Amino acid sequence: MLSAMNIAVRTRKAGAVLNMMSTQEKNAILESFADRLNDLESELLTANAEDIRDAKATTLRGQLIERLRLNSSKLRQMTDAIRQVITLPDPAGRTLRHTLLDDGLELRQVTVPFGTVLAIIESRPDAVVQLISLMVKSGNALIVKAGHEARATVAVIQRAIHESLARHGVPIECMTVIYGREAVAELLTLSNYIDLVVPRGSKELIQYVQEHTRIPVIGHADGICHIYVDAEADCEMATRIILDAKTQAPSACNAVETVLIHHDAAGVIPPLLAALRERGVAVRGCEQTAALAGAVQVEAIGDESEWATEYGDLTVAIRVVENVEAAMAHIAKYGSHHTDAIITKNEAVAERFLAGVDSANVYHNASTRFADGYRYGLGAEVGISTGKLPPRGPVGLDGLVTYKWVLRGAGHISATYQGEQAKPFKHTNLSASSGTNCPTP
Amino acid sequence: MLSAMNIAVRTRKAGAVLNMMSTQEKNAILESFADRLNDLESELLTANAEDIRDAKATTLRGQLIERLRLNSSKLRQMTDAIRQVITLPDPAGRTLRHTLLDDGLELRQVTVPFGTVLAIIESRPDAVVQLISLMVKSGNALIVKAGHEARATVAVIQRAIHESLARHGVPIECMTVIYGREAVAELLTLSNYIDLVVPRGSKELIQYVQEHTRIPVIGHADGICHIYVDAEADCEMATRIILDAKTQAPSACNAVETVLIHHDAAGVIPPLLAALRERGVAVRGCEQTAALAGAVQVEAIGDESEWATEYGDLTVAIRVVENVEAAMAHIAKYGSHHTDAIITKNEAVAERFLAGVDSANVYHNASTRFADGYRYGLGAEVGISTGKLPPRGPVGLDGLVTYKWVLRGAGHISATYQGEQAKPFKHTNLSASSGTNCPTP
Repeated sequence: MLSAMNIAVRTRKAGAVLNMMSTQEKNAILESFADRLNDLESELLTANAEDIRDAKATTLRGQLIERLRLNSSKLRQMTDAIRQVITLPDPAGRTLRHTLLDDGLELRQVTVPFGTVLAIIESRPDAVVQLISLMVKSGNALIVKAGHEARATVAVIQRAIHESLARHGVPIECMTVIYGREAVAELLTLSNYIDLVVPRGSKELIQYVQEHTRIPVIGHADGICHIYVDAEADCEMATRIILDAKTQAPSACNAVETVLIHHDAAGVIPPLLAALRERGVAVRGCEQTAALAGAVQVEAIGDESEWATEYGDLTVAIRVVENVEAAMAHIAKYGSHHTDAIITKNEAVAERFLAGVDSANVYHNASTRFADGYRYGLGAEVGISTGKLPPRGPVGLDGLVTYKWVLRGAGHISATYQGEQAKPFKHTNLSASSGTNCPTP
Repeated sequence: MLSAMNIAVRTRKAGAVLNMMSTQEKNAILESFADRLNDLESELLTANAEDIRDAKATTLRGQLIERLRLNSSKLRQMTDAIRQVITLPDPAGRTLRHTLLDDGLELRQVTVPFGTVLAIIESRPDAVVQLISLMVKSGNALIVKAGHEARATVAVIQRAIHESLARHGVPIECMTVIYGREAVAELLTLSNYIDLVVPRGSKELIQYVQEHTRIPVIGHADGICHIYVDAEADCEMATRIILDAKTQAPSACNAVETVLIHHDAAGVIPPLLAALRERGVAVRGCEQTAALAGAVQVEAIGDESEWATEYGDLTVAIRVVENVEAAMAHIAKYGSHHTDAIITKNEAVAERFLAGVDSANVYHNASTRFADGYRYGLGAEVGISTGKLPPRGPVGLDGLVTYKWVLRGAGHISATYQGEQAKPFKHTNLSASSGTNCPTP
């Protein structure tokens, strides 16, 4: 078995070819990939049945086995998803800025692939296929740590992408699947060979990654989202949005965990609690909420630290607050900078909240559940990042590129532009005429 | 004295006001700042004389004393620089992407200040003034660690900015000057309160910062820049560019350290060496270079590791290589991802080099010395970053902002767009009609 260092070195080396490929070449690889997966359908299903059999023999839970399971219809969805990625614009090779510094001296700020991405994923075969597609499209080499339980299935997927890469003259080592946590631990230290880490999975996994690497990470450990119901909220709207944000997908990171209610809007509490109870939501809350609960049972929150809990199920916490400042202070103290919303008819208060809450996504009169790359129209989602630096929030293909500055001259030297006889720079913006779109950073 | 944690907390809190200010308000603070510095001229010069006297009493070298020294003309330059920053576009509050998700549901990706920046700077008073200006303009709170030797001068500068902030209703704690390495060491661990670190100074300082924080750092420890003279280079152009890149400012990070020469272009070596000798440049080189040196003395490089040396003075290393691939491999192995150039008439080889060299700045037929925020037309330079993630290369005001996603709805819930009866999203791009410019990410 290769050491982590060997894997990283050979992936970087093989990736250099993929990094520089044209959009046409990358799309051709993706076409091949989809075709090969179709061709290999019977091998895929046989391998998957083997994985399922092994998984059942172990303690794997039913839900995980379902995620692992493939059939013809799921395979069709996977190849459709690849063809969808083919239609997306290439994030690499775009000119962000184009400046004429002087006659014959042109500066371009151009997007380029990161280089090598390390991804850590769950045992869903479709997640492996999606990751490979996004990396090929953005021109990044990939080391993906998959789950042991999907090993036979993933081996066939790997064969499909390797055959597609080879057909187009790309060294197959640019797409490498590994297993086992030990290799990951070592790869996280190789910041000269890995440019970006995309961890998917449990909060513990993501925290472990964040604490053990200096490589930039796209991800979030917590999704503690808030909805603040202002004094001037439409109570019917507030109830509708809270129900959607809590019950539409309770385990999603963009589901609401805490509802903050202006004390002047406390009238919303009885009907809200009734509606929540009807949808099977357990309510925990501050003393004031409990006092207004009436017939609905509200478990009092004793420990302050509970406000920083991501329930991830049909449980919601409710707190009555003095005003929008108190709501913002609560979010700053207990939130996870993911997605926070205000419900109000007062535009000035809404703008205050949108500007003052330091989260990746801030909403006015909308459900927190919209925080998602597909819903944002990004075409694909690599992950959601709650860090401060871009890429922030839902990250699409554009989050898989960085940029470099390319200067083309004709023998220009800097002395020309310095000292007593200094020639002035022109600094003419040529971006407008270059026809490039305004990209996401 | 306040603890580092107290400083960080109160800076974050005071910064919340500055973070949300309009362009007009921020410019008004900068106008006041320039005016107050002018008003305080005699206090400034008296304080500076005190610092200079103390510095002379210690072991401070002459060059450092000159950097510390203020006079009326330098003060004028400082206030001119502030007024220059006023004319620059506000990097915050710009719409990068504007999408209609559905009727009444609008998504905007908007630039926002990072929050709080920790800067570590040398003892130049003008550097303190420039940093404060850039932070006010971008809406970021600042904790700046200044050098003890500039203490009296910086105290007057701090008084000027505090009076300007107070006049405009901004808590003065958003601009805090600290001294001493101990506070810095603790601040570097406070990733919940500090969003960005800008270290300026020695390689050792920057390495120390990079190794002791998980907060994003704008900076570079090394500037090991290369110029590759291709087989099809114009030898006269190559010599001119190399002389400029080595001698125009030998201690600058964008000065060339190593020249790589295609063996078919080795004919450039004798005239190049003669020209370098005439400008007082010491040459170190590979065996082949030494063999071609003739009368010029070339010190042979014995230890491979020397290729990774930033001389920072009038010394250059020269190596003869087989071809452009060998040059690129050398740069990948020994370079610092700062600035690397190729000199060639062959466009195809040039494009190969520009695409294949993984550096923040890659040049064709131009001196490495152009790698600079002012020369790039960014209007100001915060620093030069050699990391992979944006901001990369010369970082201007645009590098002091990140973005958030702002969604404004009218009671929209996600259930509308899911399931059997799902309404499709519109995903109409409204960016074109919003009149915003294409910004640097």
